[in-house]
Amino acid sequence: MQLAEIITERVRRVTATAKVALHEPCFRGRELAYVTECIETGWVSSVGSYVDRFERDLAAYTGAKHAVVVSNGTSGLQIALQLVGVEAGDEVLIPALSFVATANAVRHCGAQPHFVDSDEASLGIGIAALAEHLGQVAEVLAGVCRNKRTGRRIAAVVPMHTFGHPVDMPALLELAARYHIEVVEDAAESLGSTIGGRHTGTFGRCSMLSFNGNKIVTTGGGGAILTDDAALAKRAKHLSTTAKMPHAWAFYHDEVAYNYRMPNLNAALGCAQLEQIDGFLDAKRELTQRYLEAFSDLPHVRLFTERPGTRANYWLQTLLIAPELAEQRDAILAATNGAGQMTRPVWELLSTLPMYRDCASMATPVAQDLARRIINLPSSPQLIMGAV
Amino acid sequence: MQLAEIITERVRRVTATAKVALHEPCFRGRELAYVTECIETGWVSSVGSYVDRFERDLAAYTGAKHAVVVSNGTSGLQIALQLVGVEAGDEVLIPALSFVATANAVRHCGAQPHFVDSDEASLGIGIAALAEHLGQVAEVLAGVCRNKRTGRRIAAVVPMHTFGHPVDMPALLELAARYHIEVVEDAAESLGSTIGGRHTGTFGRCSMLSFNGNKIVTTGGGGAILTDDAALAKRAKHLSTTAKMPHAWAFYHDEVAYNYRMPNLNAALGCAQLEQIDGFLDAKRELTQRYLEAFSDLPHVRLFTERPGTRANYWLQTLLIAPELAEQRDAILAATNGAGQMTRPVWELLSTLPMYRDCASMATPVAQDLARRIINLPSSPQLIMGAV
Repeated sequence: MQLAEIITERVRRVTATAKVALHEPCFRGRELAYVTECIETGWVSSVGSYVDRFERDLAAYTGAKHAVVVSNGTSGLQIALQLVGVEAGDEVLIPALSFVATANAVRHCGAQPHFVDSDEASLGIGIAALAEHLGQVAEVLAGVCRNKRTGRRIAAVVPMHTFGHPVDMPALLELAARYHIEVVEDAAESLGSTIGGRHTGTFGRCSMLSFNGNKIVTTGGGGAILTDDAALAKRAKHLSTTAKMPHAWAFYHDEVAYNYRMPNLNAALGCAQLEQIDGFLDAKRELTQRYLEAFSDLPHVRLFTERPGTRANYWLQTLLIAPELAEQRDAILAATNGAGQMTRPVWELLSTLPMYRDCASMATPVAQDLARRIINLPSSPQLIMGAV
Repeated sequence: MQLAEIITERVRRVTATAKVALHEPCFRGRELAYVTECIETGWVSSVGSYVDRFERDLAAYTGAKHAVVVSNGTSGLQIALQLVGVEAGDEVLIPALSFVATANAVRHCGAQPHFVDSDEASLGIGIAALAEHLGQVAEVLAGVCRNKRTGRRIAAVVPMHTFGHPVDMPALLELAARYHIEVVEDAAESLGSTIGGRHTGTFGRCSMLSFNGNKIVTTGGGGAILTDDAALAKRAKHLSTTAKMPHAWAFYHDEVAYNYRMPNLNAALGCAQLEQIDGFLDAKRELTQRYLEAFSDLPHVRLFTERPGTRANYWLQTLLIAPELAEQRDAILAATNGAGQMTRPVWELLSTLPMYRDCASMATPVAQDLARRIINLPSSPQLIMGAV
């Protein structure tokens, strides 16, 4: 039997379902009750009690002092970058291996991505390689880090916690401090993931979460900014709500800003979802165990598991194909998807996309290798929790 | 009795309610049924049957060939401007008298607002004055219109249908064509408003609608782009959905783009709302009649009514104070709001806000005059339709 067929058979054994999505929302709590309340009271839009509550609940859950909800992860990251001072013409260090939103948010600030290689142990930014790269291209003068090759300021670095696996934040913070670079975490995929018990998204000066429909907790579409800095939180709210100055009736706005509000209707969904996150996390860990068992006898594939000292949310289950069999990736994707078991490769490296291929980049051998070898497997909590 | 007290008393007579908002959503249809279906089926996010249906329903209702739903009016206008070719460094003609989103959307394209005076008959762009202004500052060379003073290209003009009162689009189209300027309608406030039976938003090359919580039809937060051009509609969808190329599994994106999707949950609300728009429009017309009667004996105020040949949606009821009593505006606002009857002035002129005051502008005597004299009155359809 071919590897593709073997993997398809093992995935189907775990999912025990003829046709299964990569990740589906799971509504088993008070979603309908909260949304019904919004409609019955008329409070569906950008002001409402669920907006305030979801912000409080997110802060309490993550341990961040402040959470500001926004329209989605992309808008959240753009605002977060602006909060730490990213300006037009700056460079922002981001992983080459990430969803396109990470790069788009940088460009929406008028800044340029500067691509960083990956770390095989975390799937995130390769910190040792980045340190070596900065040693070659960066110089710090009067507290400002510059790319000597482009002349641009390197204003920030954006670690992204891939599929919920935490980057080594203490090491990255140390490196960033040495170069006077701000740290903004892209925690879009890592709600529920921790490092030494501390939640991802609370290490950088600020961070972003996503509640897109495919995430562990969804609001339909939505995101949030986390920060411990009260002034940054206030400014995040200001920038995401058209910079309107408080007044009983006057319309006065004091800077160019955005309509990135999350409607109360969506926040209501988020409140109900967050109440259930412990159950989702448990289901995902159990699913990891089942995939580990299912693949344990196959020498050419390996289920990616959390690093010691971290706890992953296992948002998307991740299979790594052995390097010597990487060319079979597309056959595996075709076989699994053809058999109704939805699987996905990781993203094309951002540094290879037409709009970003001329941006600054370090060598990306690890990211290129991972991109050929990663396959995400069906990951919905329903696979453990069962159908309703 | 002071004018402020008289007006307060008349407003309360019409609203017949002790405490009344400026405009509240009205959910009397299938809102809960459609939203429940989203939650029960799990389809709450950016792909789903209500997204497709709401786009079809909007096209059918307005007569536009295509509608593309987005996250809100601001993002819709930004995309619409990009669709007609607005680029960084261009100027875009917009009314000085508009909500700040009109100017922000221009800046989000990297372009600069160029402010236009108002017309007392429509509350929108003053077309005769704009023609005179363009005669002085604009030159057309090789089909490109330039501002001779700034050297910038004047790429587009954005008529905004204030409070649902249509701009004279045939006259504006003629002027814009003469100067080779693209027309993008800001129809955020004018769903249901027509000119000669043709819906606002179908005159320009494309246009934008808003479904914010305060609009005649709401999705919580949301917007749409209308166009008759199939290629523009396709590109609007592409730009608002991260420019992802269709593929069974690969993540390939071919340009810098946005996450401006409307979640299915919000589109479901929109479908239910749009089914009821005729009733809302009838209620608003009836409310206009009641305000007309209530103010008929007061010589110093005038309810603003639709121009001949147009049909306004009367989204917000608008009272104009006589010029000689304009200094009483704030007293009237204080008295009405103090008595639980929510009223609002119009926006501060965009050309006076700190981030826009250095932009190009024609003289704005009419806009300045209107800004001192406009008061919006409680306008919810419930004031006619009654409480549930």
